[in-house]
Amino acid sequence: MTDGNFFEDFRVGQHFRHATPRTLTCGDAAAYIGLTGARHPLHCSVPLARALGYRGAPLDDLLVFNTAFGKTVPDISLNAVANLGYADVRFIEPVYGDDTIQAESEVIGIRETSGGESGVVYVRSTAFNQDARPVLTWIRWVLVRKRDLSTAAPDALVPALPEAVSVERLSVPSLSQAAGLLEKATSNDRFWGDYSIGQRIDHPAGMTLEEADHIFATRLYQNNAKVHFDALAMQSTQHGRRLVYGGHVISVCRALSYDGLENVMSILAINAGSHVAPTFAGDTLYGFTEVLDKFDLPGRDDCGALRLRLTGIRNNHPVGFPAKDISSGKARYNRDVVLDLDYTVLIPKNLSTHIEGL
Amino acid sequence: MTDGNFFEDFRVGQHFRHATPRTLTCGDAAAYIGLTGARHPLHCSVPLARALGYRGAPLDDLLVFNTAFGKTVPDISLNAVANLGYADVRFIEPVYGDDTIQAESEVIGIRETSGGESGVVYVRSTAFNQDARPVLTWIRWVLVRKRDLSTAAPDALVPALPEAVSVERLSVPSLSQAAGLLEKATSNDRFWGDYSIGQRIDHPAGMTLEEADHIFATRLYQNNAKVHFDALAMQSTQHGRRLVYGGHVISVCRALSYDGLENVMSILAINAGSHVAPTFAGDTLYGFTEVLDKFDLPGRDDCGALRLRLTGIRNNHPVGFPAKDISSGKARYNRDVVLDLDYTVLIPKNLSTHIEGL
Amino acid sequence: MTDGNFFEDFRVGQHFRHATPRTLTCGDAAAYIGLTGARHPLHCSVPLARALGYRGAPLDDLLVFNTAFGKTVPDISLNAVANLGYADVRFIEPVYGDDTIQAESEVIGIRETSGGESGVVYVRSTAFNQDARPVLTWIRWVLVRKRDLSTAAPDALVPALPEAVSVERLSVPSLSQAAGLLEKATSNDRFWGDYSIGQRIDHPAGMTLEEADHIFATRLYQNNAKVHFDALAMQSTQHGRRLVYGGHVISVCRALSYDGLENVMSILAINAGSHVAPTFAGDTLYGFTEVLDKFDLPGRDDCGALRLRLTGIRNNHPVGFPAKDISSGKARYNRDVVLDLDYTVLIPKNLSTHIEGL
Repeated sequence: MTDGNFFEDFRVGQHFRHATPRTLTCGDAAAYIGLTGARHPLHCSVPLARALGYRGAPLDDLLVFNTAFGKTVPDISLNAVANLGYADVRFIEPVYGDDTIQAESEVIGIRETSGGESGVVYVRSTAFNQDARPVLTWIRWVLVRKRDLSTAAPDALVPALPEAVSVERLSVPSLSQAAGLLEKATSNDRFWGDYSIGQRIDHPAGMTLEEADHIFATRLYQNNAKVHFDALAMQSTQHGRRLVYGGHVISVCRALSYDGLENVMSILAINAGSHVAPTFAGDTLYGFTEVLDKFDLPGRDDCGALRLRLTGIRNNHPVGFPAKDISSGKARYNRDVVLDLDYTVLIPKNLSTHIEGL
Repeated sequence: MTDGNFFEDFRVGQHFRHATPRTLTCGDAAAYIGLTGARHPLHCSVPLARALGYRGAPLDDLLVFNTAFGKTVPDISLNAVANLGYADVRFIEPVYGDDTIQAESEVIGIRETSGGESGVVYVRSTAFNQDARPVLTWIRWVLVRKRDLSTAAPDALVPALPEAVSVERLSVPSLSQAAGLLEKATSNDRFWGDYSIGQRIDHPAGMTLEEADHIFATRLYQNNAKVHFDALAMQSTQHGRRLVYGGHVISVCRALSYDGLENVMSILAINAGSHVAPTFAGDTLYGFTEVLDKFDLPGRDDCGALRLRLTGIRNNHPVGFPAKDISSGKARYNRDVVLDLDYTVLIPKNLSTHIEGL
Repeated sequence: MTDGNFFEDFRVGQHFRHATPRTLTCGDAAAYIGLTGARHPLHCSVPLARALGYRGAPLDDLLVFNTAFGKTVPDISLNAVANLGYADVRFIEPVYGDDTIQAESEVIGIRETSGGESGVVYVRSTAFNQDARPVLTWIRWVLVRKRDLSTAAPDALVPALPEAVSVERLSVPSLSQAAGLLEKATSNDRFWGDYSIGQRIDHPAGMTLEEADHIFATRLYQNNAKVHFDALAMQSTQHGRRLVYGGHVISVCRALSYDGLENVMSILAINAGSHVAPTFAGDTLYGFTEVLDKFDLPGRDDCGALRLRLTGIRNNHPVGFPAKDISSGKARYNRDVVLDLDYTVLIPKNLSTHIEGL
């Protein structure tokens, strides 16, 4: 029971109610800032969030994501070889300090790998708040070891995954005077209209990771995957050492992306994501962002959406770093790319509003 | 004054009111999870705790213990060579976020060691909340250096220590629908009736300690014992380096014990405990639990007590690790045992209750 | 824009409204204790603070200072070679959990260095709370690189800096029964009257710094100066590695100074401060305090002020460590001095009051 599930333990339609509910507080919010250096203002300032129309400062989207993800680990990925990808990640409702998160999952696909030593499990997970309302939902697929190599392969079912979360499936909050308030908070006047499709933003800052950093973060999320914590057991693996939890890599790269994306308010969706290569303590992370798309949101003239690709790289400054080579028709990554995250964000449109107060 | 007390400064009956009062908050609770990976649900979920009948989510028992312990260090153990043992540790009342802890101690025994270079001091300490109600009490004994080796030995007084906290001295909270609520929270249906005396549970996870981990935790508890912080001063000691605070070892081993003891609600008492060997950054901690006893609680059919021995080990997986060798009549420990903790926990009895809601 | 300002971007009278507002909570307060080991009681105990007359436990003065300072970094010191000094730092009003801080700065002086490769920028910064009331103000001057060495030097303007914050400019809170309450909290009866000018206090404890420590703290303050985070970029600098943020050094040395200054309530002002030498992970910090002055506060007989010099040193115990050599008329520091902080604190006078309760 406490060894977690192996590939042959999963079947399509299987449902998990994950342990254990977790009340997130301003203590988690502070720790998250300390662990990542996140600076996006909506999550940092209660007066700003209230002026915008929120009932408080929402917790950082990725704090919520990582906490909810952590809940699924004991059942889904304790024996995972790798977390292969994410799709259809939708942030449905803000989570505030003192909200309580619980997560459930359903297996939506399964496929044994050709070698027969492991298989891919596709899972739809959803996090609920204390009022049983969904706040976040996501699909991920993981490569899981078999317990017994002689077990026959199950019938394969690979679910259809949306290439991106379509606009009508995004949950967009009501906002008040967004551009004016954001500009006052960030002293930056770059809004939706100032970004163009194809534009690339090299984020100037780098962050060198420490073992104590990533294990603190991963424990905070109550993610108990052994690969992050047990250096002794990891000695006998191909890597020889602890792996940094991929969600921490996302959080750090996202925090680095503040410079250049100052007025991004929140993440609406993650369209696709993959941890291209493992990250280790000692690596210095950098990132660059490409604007894949920009579009209006139905019925809204105060804000719009940007579809961004955030590439996380290690030990190379982003200036001059090559984008993904797609010339051959199949994506190939530079060996120092660690993260490829295609996500959609909410950003105000500049209406030249004059705002008083805050 | 700021050098702390040496052996000759202690006398039986001496009383200390320790500095300084400390308000514990949800910030401490979050940091505790980040530092240990604790997952026991009572301390993590406000709605669960309230449904059970608590007025909020109690702080983790060991966060309270370590904070209260830390208060005693400047007066009792700043010059301690070793913390030799604990006895009669009773968790009297839950401590909640925003409660304030203050600690007092009384010297209850004293004995110079045969070499004459140090002595053992036995202390009863009690932590009080802001309403001056005791929340936790414990006995510990420490080996303290003498300032002046020529000081004559005091009359020895070794207090009688209870072998275990007896059932009538346990403080058991009122609970509502415990088994049903816990099962919903942990997705685990192993309760009091499912454990048997003599049973051994090998906890599968390991946790490699970092220097930054244990010093953050120990500072959080405002424990200022130099052995944990001053690497330069430690170079000239037998260990040559900083020691991990024993309370952090207890906390980490306890967090590891979640897998296999999911529905344990809280610690009622620590009957006996000893730090068998020092722990250092870089060590990977594991643990296994033996069920020493199980018993009913007076007037209660909804929950019972388990008396557990948690053995903390370093750099060895618990599967196959030998239990304490007691064949010679005197306990001998494997050299990789770091913690021997005999404690009593509260766990629901499965009444096959059907619970709705939460 | 995201590269920060270089020397030629600054001009006298230039004003910055810094990004982004930050709500500080009990989560930050807990993290601050975990990162520094701070023990001064006013910031740790809500009941004590309320009994003294505060509306809650004020956040540690240096948590506020470091947070406010962090706000100024992206505009002022992202390209700083060194933070040369502080003056006229005044703590105007307590900051409580859930207060929100925003910072503004004005350039008050500018001077190109003789080599022409960089220049000194003098800045007055002020932090405001959510009610737009100033809570903290300070002057600092930083050495900033030029972007283009051929730029002509601007007219030099070096502001007059006060040698110390004069007594009439100190903001002193109303207090109730200060000495009695403090003594109960700290079990220490050393008050204003017990310190004498010229007295030196060697603080016994040392704290060895870890990389994960200082980067957690610096991220918590949302200070994004690259020198603290990007180990790869730092390889090509003279130091070859990450620098510890000077504000963290101040915080750690201040926490170490608790032993010997137990009843100091809060910092009223920093008269002058300089980071004499860089600090690195692995260094063990110690400190000693000299009492430079003591004086009454207008209209107050319950408390007084001490003007203290806190010298932070690395890898040397303070006992026997030489004070600053001022024999030549110009200050010369021992090479292991890292911090010289001249500050003024509030401390009760012992009125032999008998206090009941708390």
